[in-house]
Amino acid sequence: MIDPVRPIAIQDVEEARGRIAGTVLRTPLVRLELGAGAPEIWLKLENLQPTNAYKIRGATNAVASLTDEERGRGVWTISAGNAGQGVAYAARKAGVPSSVVAIETAPQTKLERMRALGATIVPVSYEQAWQSAEAHAHPGLDSTFIHPFDNHDFIAGHGTMGLEILEDLPEVHTVIAAIGGGGLISGVGSAIKAMRPDVRVLGAEPETAAPYALSLREGGPRKFSDWEASFVDGAGGKSVTERMWQRMRPVVDGSITVTLDQTRDAMRLIAEKTRTIAEGAGALALAAALTGEAGDGPIVCIVSGGNIDLKKFCELVSA
Amino acid sequence: MIDPVRPIAIQDVEEARGRIAGTVLRTPLVRLELGAGAPEIWLKLENLQPTNAYKIRGATNAVASLTDEERGRGVWTISAGNAGQGVAYAARKAGVPSSVVAIETAPQTKLERMRALGATIVPVSYEQAWQSAEAHAHPGLDSTFIHPFDNHDFIAGHGTMGLEILEDLPEVHTVIAAIGGGGLISGVGSAIKAMRPDVRVLGAEPETAAPYALSLREGGPRKFSDWEASFVDGAGGKSVTERMWQRMRPVVDGSITVTLDQTRDAMRLIAEKTRTIAEGAGALALAAALTGEAGDGPIVCIVSGGNIDLKKFCELVSA
Repeated sequence: MIDPVRPIAIQDVEEARGRIAGTVLRTPLVRLELGAGAPEIWLKLENLQPTNAYKIRGATNAVASLTDEERGRGVWTISAGNAGQGVAYAARKAGVPSSVVAIETAPQTKLERMRALGATIVPVSYEQAWQSAEAHAHPGLDSTFIHPFDNHDFIAGHGTMGLEILEDLPEVHTVIAAIGGGGLISGVGSAIKAMRPDVRVLGAEPETAAPYALSLREGGPRKFSDWEASFVDGAGGKSVTERMWQRMRPVVDGSITVTLDQTRDAMRLIAEKTRTIAEGAGALALAAALTGEAGDGPIVCIVSGGNIDLKKFCELVSA
Repeated sequence: MIDPVRPIAIQDVEEARGRIAGTVLRTPLVRLELGAGAPEIWLKLENLQPTNAYKIRGATNAVASLTDEERGRGVWTISAGNAGQGVAYAARKAGVPSSVVAIETAPQTKLERMRALGATIVPVSYEQAWQSAEAHAHPGLDSTFIHPFDNHDFIAGHGTMGLEILEDLPEVHTVIAAIGGGGLISGVGSAIKAMRPDVRVLGAEPETAAPYALSLREGGPRKFSDWEASFVDGAGGKSVTERMWQRMRPVVDGSITVTLDQTRDAMRLIAEKTRTIAEGAGALALAAALTGEAGDGPIVCIVSGGNIDLKKFCELVSA
């Protein structure tokens, strides 16, 4: 029933770029000035997107890639956060209805942002959400499903970031992206490796939720049994699925695990230097670069999103 | 001794654009989504510049426009904040020394940022700083002076923002810029009016420091005798000088005065919607647009800078 995984071709990414041009921001790549002796680090500011996260790239490409019939039925996805906002935004732009299957304990602010974009919220338990994500179906929803990470067009949309990075900084050595579901790094990695196989692509995960690093050590997709919830709620999965392992493995060179303290320090540094607000997941890549494990650079760190409550942000960076 | 004021020609701005391209960020223009019934507002995010303020545009153009002999002597300016950082950054990029005459009570963080960029700080009293700004000279400094606002090349550099706005949003009706010394609005207004005289150019000032609105009402440059210090420390002057009046009057259509509460609300809205940190001055233009006095738009509000202490920012937006 579910299409087998196939590699993201560079043509898929180039076509995605045309489809998303009017909706998605071509985000700036800004130099992080750290003084002599520090690695050369650049930040790709996806927190500036209209929904404040990179997911809008994939969502817009996925909605635009549907046939008229599929799109005409409306779309639905599963998400408690950034993917739901991305799909709702893309659907509204396309003039079709959207529904988001959301875990009933999701923060009200995120649900309100999805509703403000016109989405109908379908509240479910955590277990129901994961069952639906694996089944690619949910009882009572007959509109067109857009998977929040395991979707070819969604991932190809994220790849557009890779093209922009190579245009803006041809001398890049290493690109670091946070790993949650794995869609971001699959898309960016596919685009980068197709154009410039010499550029290293690294993941970043918090120590409380690092299934990809574990999977790399053990040679296959694994569940991270010591998973803990934290303020890094937009990345760090409980497991790597077989399908996402197939997508990531060919285009990812390794993964760096960081502490929550390192992540908070990176959030503060992003705020101090770029005057932008990153959520925990958005600061993982910089935290990874600052460990030194990624070398001297030039390193591009993707700041994947900024959807964090302002009060929580202030608590974290003022601590 | 001081060159008379002359209009900023569009050629000056176009040449500036070439000079600053490698140093200055072409900042994104992002739509502020406010829902049905609200004016159409776009934000030009100059807080993302390397020094977190638009001043780097003018400073880079001014340093690059010097003769080799002038530049070779090093440069100096007068500033407690954004202009000093801009000149220090541009000088470092050009490989020449810089000095900044700074009011001795300036915040240590701002002085440290200038020192980190290689500037020598010359601490003076408030009165000495203003004497030197009017005289275009300071005892003991024989390097080349770059005035922080009353300088043709400095202002032409700011005009480059106008070109970018017209390219990114040709349907713009109104552009709003904060007024401090007056350099920002003179530059942007000159570029906009040369290309598109139908576009309205409006200033924004806080009620505690609104000498331009007063000057417009009274028909000539005035001192604002009720001036009060506030968190809006990057704009809102004590007076409009005769020279800056000559620069602004032909290219500015009016000015909107906003309260400090409106300014703080605009700071919070910028943070919520764009995930960026604006200083008080950086939020004035949006506060002005939200009064309704600037019409339905499309309105472009220049977010001029983001140099505010993180703790102070958090206090203001969490209140």
